[in-house]
Amino acid sequence: MARLTDRLFVLATFVAVIAFAPWAGAANAPYAAAASQDYKALRDKYYADHPGKGKFGNLWEPIPIQRYWNPKDFYRPPSTVKGEVTREQCVQCHQATSPGFYLAWKKSPHANLDGIRKLGANHPHAYKKDELAAVEAQLRKQGVLGAKDNLKEVACIDCHVAPGAKSARHDQDLKMPDRAACGACHVRQFAEAESEKEQTWPQNQWPKGHPSHAVDWKANVETDIWAGMPQREVAQGCDMCHYQQNKCDGCHTRHEFSAAEARHPEACATCHNGVDHNEFENFMLSKHGVIYATLGRKNWDFNVPLKDAFTKGGYTAPTCQTCHFEYKGEYSHNVVRKVRWGFNPTPAIRDNLSHPWFEERKEAWIGTCSNCHSASFAKSWLDTADKGTIQGLEVEQEAKKVVEALHAEGVLTGQKSNRPAPPAPVKDAPGGFFQLFWAKGNNPSRVERIYAEMWEQNLLKHYKGIFHMNPGGFTYSEGWSSLLRNYTDIMDEATKLRAAAKGGLKLTQHLPPADNLALAGVFGAFGTLLLVRGGRRKR
Amino acid sequence: MARLTDRLFVLATFVAVIAFAPWAGAANAPYAAAASQDYKALRDKYYADHPGKGKFGNLWEPIPIQRYWNPKDFYRPPSTVKGEVTREQCVQCHQATSPGFYLAWKKSPHANLDGIRKLGANHPHAYKKDELAAVEAQLRKQGVLGAKDNLKEVACIDCHVAPGAKSARHDQDLKMPDRAACGACHVRQFAEAESEKEQTWPQNQWPKGHPSHAVDWKANVETDIWAGMPQREVAQGCDMCHYQQNKCDGCHTRHEFSAAEARHPEACATCHNGVDHNEFENFMLSKHGVIYATLGRKNWDFNVPLKDAFTKGGYTAPTCQTCHFEYKGEYSHNVVRKVRWGFNPTPAIRDNLSHPWFEERKEAWIGTCSNCHSASFAKSWLDTADKGTIQGLEVEQEAKKVVEALHAEGVLTGQKSNRPAPPAPVKDAPGGFFQLFWAKGNNPSRVERIYAEMWEQNLLKHYKGIFHMNPGGFTYSEGWSSLLRNYTDIMDEATKLRAAAKGGLKLTQHLPPADNLALAGVFGAFGTLLLVRGGRRKR
Amino acid sequence: MARLTDRLFVLATFVAVIAFAPWAGAANAPYAAAASQDYKALRDKYYADHPGKGKFGNLWEPIPIQRYWNPKDFYRPPSTVKGEVTREQCVQCHQATSPGFYLAWKKSPHANLDGIRKLGANHPHAYKKDELAAVEAQLRKQGVLGAKDNLKEVACIDCHVAPGAKSARHDQDLKMPDRAACGACHVRQFAEAESEKEQTWPQNQWPKGHPSHAVDWKANVETDIWAGMPQREVAQGCDMCHYQQNKCDGCHTRHEFSAAEARHPEACATCHNGVDHNEFENFMLSKHGVIYATLGRKNWDFNVPLKDAFTKGGYTAPTCQTCHFEYKGEYSHNVVRKVRWGFNPTPAIRDNLSHPWFEERKEAWIGTCSNCHSASFAKSWLDTADKGTIQGLEVEQEAKKVVEALHAEGVLTGQKSNRPAPPAPVKDAPGGFFQLFWAKGNNPSRVERIYAEMWEQNLLKHYKGIFHMNPGGFTYSEGWSSLLRNYTDIMDEATKLRAAAKGGLKLTQHLPPADNLALAGVFGAFGTLLLVRGGRRKR
Repeated sequence: MARLTDRLFVLATFVAVIAFAPWAGAANAPYAAAASQDYKALRDKYYADHPGKGKFGNLWEPIPIQRYWNPKDFYRPPSTVKGEVTREQCVQCHQATSPGFYLAWKKSPHANLDGIRKLGANHPHAYKKDELAAVEAQLRKQGVLGAKDNLKEVACIDCHVAPGAKSARHDQDLKMPDRAACGACHVRQFAEAESEKEQTWPQNQWPKGHPSHAVDWKANVETDIWAGMPQREVAQGCDMCHYQQNKCDGCHTRHEFSAAEARHPEACATCHNGVDHNEFENFMLSKHGVIYATLGRKNWDFNVPLKDAFTKGGYTAPTCQTCHFEYKGEYSHNVVRKVRWGFNPTPAIRDNLSHPWFEERKEAWIGTCSNCHSASFAKSWLDTADKGTIQGLEVEQEAKKVVEALHAEGVLTGQKSNRPAPPAPVKDAPGGFFQLFWAKGNNPSRVERIYAEMWEQNLLKHYKGIFHMNPGGFTYSEGWSSLLRNYTDIMDEATKLRAAAKGGLKLTQHLPPADNLALAGVFGAFGTLLLVRGGRRKR
Repeated sequence: MARLTDRLFVLATFVAVIAFAPWAGAANAPYAAAASQDYKALRDKYYADHPGKGKFGNLWEPIPIQRYWNPKDFYRPPSTVKGEVTREQCVQCHQATSPGFYLAWKKSPHANLDGIRKLGANHPHAYKKDELAAVEAQLRKQGVLGAKDNLKEVACIDCHVAPGAKSARHDQDLKMPDRAACGACHVRQFAEAESEKEQTWPQNQWPKGHPSHAVDWKANVETDIWAGMPQREVAQGCDMCHYQQNKCDGCHTRHEFSAAEARHPEACATCHNGVDHNEFENFMLSKHGVIYATLGRKNWDFNVPLKDAFTKGGYTAPTCQTCHFEYKGEYSHNVVRKVRWGFNPTPAIRDNLSHPWFEERKEAWIGTCSNCHSASFAKSWLDTADKGTIQGLEVEQEAKKVVEALHAEGVLTGQKSNRPAPPAPVKDAPGGFFQLFWAKGNNPSRVERIYAEMWEQNLLKHYKGIFHMNPGGFTYSEGWSSLLRNYTDIMDEATKLRAAAKGGLKLTQHLPPADNLALAGVFGAFGTLLLVRGGRRKR
Repeated sequence: MARLTDRLFVLATFVAVIAFAPWAGAANAPYAAAASQDYKALRDKYYADHPGKGKFGNLWEPIPIQRYWNPKDFYRPPSTVKGEVTREQCVQCHQATSPGFYLAWKKSPHANLDGIRKLGANHPHAYKKDELAAVEAQLRKQGVLGAKDNLKEVACIDCHVAPGAKSARHDQDLKMPDRAACGACHVRQFAEAESEKEQTWPQNQWPKGHPSHAVDWKANVETDIWAGMPQREVAQGCDMCHYQQNKCDGCHTRHEFSAAEARHPEACATCHNGVDHNEFENFMLSKHGVIYATLGRKNWDFNVPLKDAFTKGGYTAPTCQTCHFEYKGEYSHNVVRKVRWGFNPTPAIRDNLSHPWFEERKEAWIGTCSNCHSASFAKSWLDTADKGTIQGLEVEQEAKKVVEALHAEGVLTGQKSNRPAPPAPVKDAPGGFFQLFWAKGNNPSRVERIYAEMWEQNLLKHYKGIFHMNPGGFTYSEGWSSLLRNYTDIMDEATKLRAAAKGGLKLTQHLPPADNLALAGVFGAFGTLLLVRGGRRKR
């Protein structure tokens, strides 16, 4: 009897598990799906959805480098190279003119399709054969390949002009490939990535599709201060990450376009680091990241697909990709299907966490963690992370009220006479996002800037630190500690500003330097000193 | 005659060297010692010494995740899986329910004991055979293995129930392994690690055993603010490092339990990074770390024991482990035998550095460095680091006096009317440790928070930067530069606070927002603005 | 006709390319040049140019560790080992006394010259044969090797006494090798590195040779605050990077002296990181660095020379070395030939960027980038980086005027009664470089310190972030964001300081603690509290 119970127990567990385990899915399903995708419909929708310059487009002109961040709208072929060139000539000439990119391409799958075809059926990289077959089926469907033709190579012209093109006019036909260009062959990935636009928040915490890679260019150009900043060369720095909506080489860098590269945690690092979204640092300092750094880098096979990472790739810990590309056992380029707190914690999310939309996503996360951990451990952790995030949010919300009150009371430094308006289309607001990227005179005042960092940096780091299991990220180094530092400073400043107002000290009035400056001579002397000081570190 | 002198000189040098060189010891000594250890006595003492919830235990209740940080006191088996299961069923079922951990275990020595037995006597990893023999001898002594039996494998049940168990009731017998569970087999390592508790400071600079991994849980739960913080989910973040007293998987992560992993510098990174103990960053930026990063990661064999790191493992630079596990040529899990400045520099250490306890440890360090460097280089460096640390301490001590005076004078911002008491058991104090983790109103005031960072963060980074030979760590980036930044701010604030007090500006009185706020309408307008602003980055 | 045009087009492009492609040069040219170098003339000039203790040398005495940073001036052999020892005895004895260094040497090319000789002509490392032949030719020219002799090994005595020495007196002849010692064999590299001293700025933005590795010791000892700091053990931390003028082991660490090590980005990290020159972090977070981290570390061959990095080494992205050692297709240890903005952006550079000196260097950069990118992409980027740098400079320059005005107005905190003079030879100045490394009372005042960080840290990070293509480095995390934070703080402080002066609040007068302190009892009580608090974290 005991043995029967055992069998039933084991069986029941297995059944329960199938729903969870990511690598239990049917391996070939996505490839079959890909071949039947309607590329042209996808492409047309992609272009129709593209914001171009966005709703503030009248306020700025693209600078030359932006041709490369949004080629669809800004790129024009150079006039330096005239005449029609063949596909062979493209390669031949660029071998000489840009050898680094040529050599990277030579190492890429694009230049080694036969290498993929020769992989044995049981080779851990054999999925690449399925991938290639799906690409070929899709190209046949599009009429690019004949019914019996195979793809020989993917060379310059296929991406920079059109798949299968025989020749092109360099000064007229050349394009910088966008999502749709890559998507012509990689239609499954294109469709997956575009599906992020379908995300809809249940209480409209974010507009449809936001936040996601699929609308990151829109998020960029429709952020008021981005459009309003007169410093366009600084502003384009935001484009350097916010172009995933436009191009695929943010993760699969040109011209090796390596899937293995994109599966490394560092592939996310250029964009997901720093003061307000330090996911990379948090991962690397978590035990997950430590296992990657000590055992993974050298030994894991990053050429296996994510679904095979643990079974065939030898992974013994998750990476950014194994968690965020997964959803209920499937892997996809839609990485927002388990998003809950999104970019930043807000009361509108906090107050709705028990809504089924959020609950279902939390369950999906428990499924992800359960690939290794027990469900009870996973649930305990996610509960802890939710509550810890809310504790940080409460500190930030208390400070927010204080800063808004100081503004309403009119006691901010220089508020009465030295607060220039921000550039259009930005509307002035205490502690606004724009105050991190623009400043003039006493706008922002110090206390506002501190608060802007608190809500946009400290709180985000706190949330991301705790969810990525980096202890220092939400206790003593970042997050909580920083929230309290800035809370302390805001409270101190509030007491001082009010005491000054009460005491008649006119901090709110900006005074220009005295015209009849008694010390003008000294000033002049120091100015000279600065110019001659040592000759080494001039300012 | 010259030749005889030469011979004598060389001979004398060799003799002198034997005392220093770590790899000159008898290789098998520790394994012989391990077999004869009295495990049960060790275990009983370990439990007797364990603080449980500690002296402030009445002030807090464990939250669910803490079951995993201190399983001894908080873990209870889940009721979800009923019935008795065999050791085979554990493996079989978890292969399906938590495949990631199953696969990690399959790669571990625990699942590959025969692989160890097959190692040739001269294989660089052959020490694992000695290690395994010692484990088996110990298990025979404990009656777990028969006199002629060998260990077949170490599977789920051996650690999660008891070594050698045949079956168990999942909902009653399951435990999360603690130090004592790992120690049942790895008794030598257990004894070594526990021996840290014997450390006694000559002038009581620290309580017995502190600071060390062996009492880090005690240090955690008996820190006043940790116990007093109402934000338990943030507080448990401290546990995530401060659990080495409870468990071994901080360094040897589950379920591969790799010694090679634990020998990588990154293994220390999760805990030893950040604002007050950035050992990892300092190492990585030192030339020691650069050699590891450029040549070590790829080429060194981290599977050799530390004593063979240079001779057989190909190391050409030290790691965290080769320096800190070593003491007079022996390697052990007691890593406090060369501790001098401990966690943070204090006058009580500075003033006693010439005491034999400190001098002897400095000599031991010179021995460590002398594995590569000349003793005169090593001594020059350690003298430099001592003096440089003291120079930082002097800046901090000067600021301390100022902040304590401001408090005593009663001129701190909001001190008279807006200084809530910290939560029990914390006692209020200017610049106290608690002010880094708790804040309310004007407690702490800004100047106190700055001072708290100065003594608890800047000074520690300064000390750790110089001792780890990271130039930027104690000059321009961290340490000295930060100490001076905060010194400057404290001095500036002191002058201002006193001038305000003298001038009758009542900064010490917190004023609530005016009830009859003239600008209330504006405030309301801004509040609304904030809610609708862009829909993208709400606060 | 079309085909003829095509051919002409392709041909023309090839011709144009030869001027750009770094790996198109004649491979053996540098080796031939090296053999004919006049080592003794180079060495004599090197010593003649060496600043020794520099122009402030009368103000400081070297501390023991500085023997190792500047051995030429400060090193003396230890008296501990007497008598004459042979070259074999050096090795034999140090195998025992400093085994780590011995083992590193055993892995080095110096101990494996025959391994180099055996390399086949087509081996990717075969350049080492040319290198070795050049060394031998040079040693024959110097009379160290006979006309038909080959070099057997390079052992302790060759570098620490003299090339080819048979024996030496340890207490009299021993030296720590300097640039000239390495240069005796590696004369080409010595000459290249020394040629940095020839750099002359067209409008005297920097003194001749500055900034460069070749004069970094001079820059160090002739910086006023370095010489004036009483904290010599902190000051020597600067030497730990600023010794490249003296020694070669900053990049090629002893005693493996690996060229492959020095070709890794991490080799630059110890010095090129942190608050004012975070080149390493910027590279690692750029897509260049990501490709290195994901694909390069494991797969690229760092033993090929830089000119072969892409063609034979498998590089698919640049490293620090491939860009900064290159100039118009040649690679050299002179890394300043493309310097434009130098260490820090200044108006004197900004205002002259259209001068041919700067334009020509910009063209050289376009050539470098064109190894992979199109020239139009490269130019767009460099234009963007120039303009973005200037936008940061403008923010800093506006703040500079404000801080200098506050100083001239005499309204800085404590300026009238609590501003001690900095130590000689430093001259007081508002926001001066010295204020980052020295502080006393209200010198610097807080606003000056903030400005010092702005010009010396924020602006530099901004510039280096944008030029290294790290988006966060010049937008939201570092650079622009930090510049605005400190601008905001300075403007806030300016308004407050002037309002205080106007309002009669004497912030400029430092008040000592009141003698008749009413709260003295409380102060005493707190002091005691601090001493007994918990026994864990004493200050």
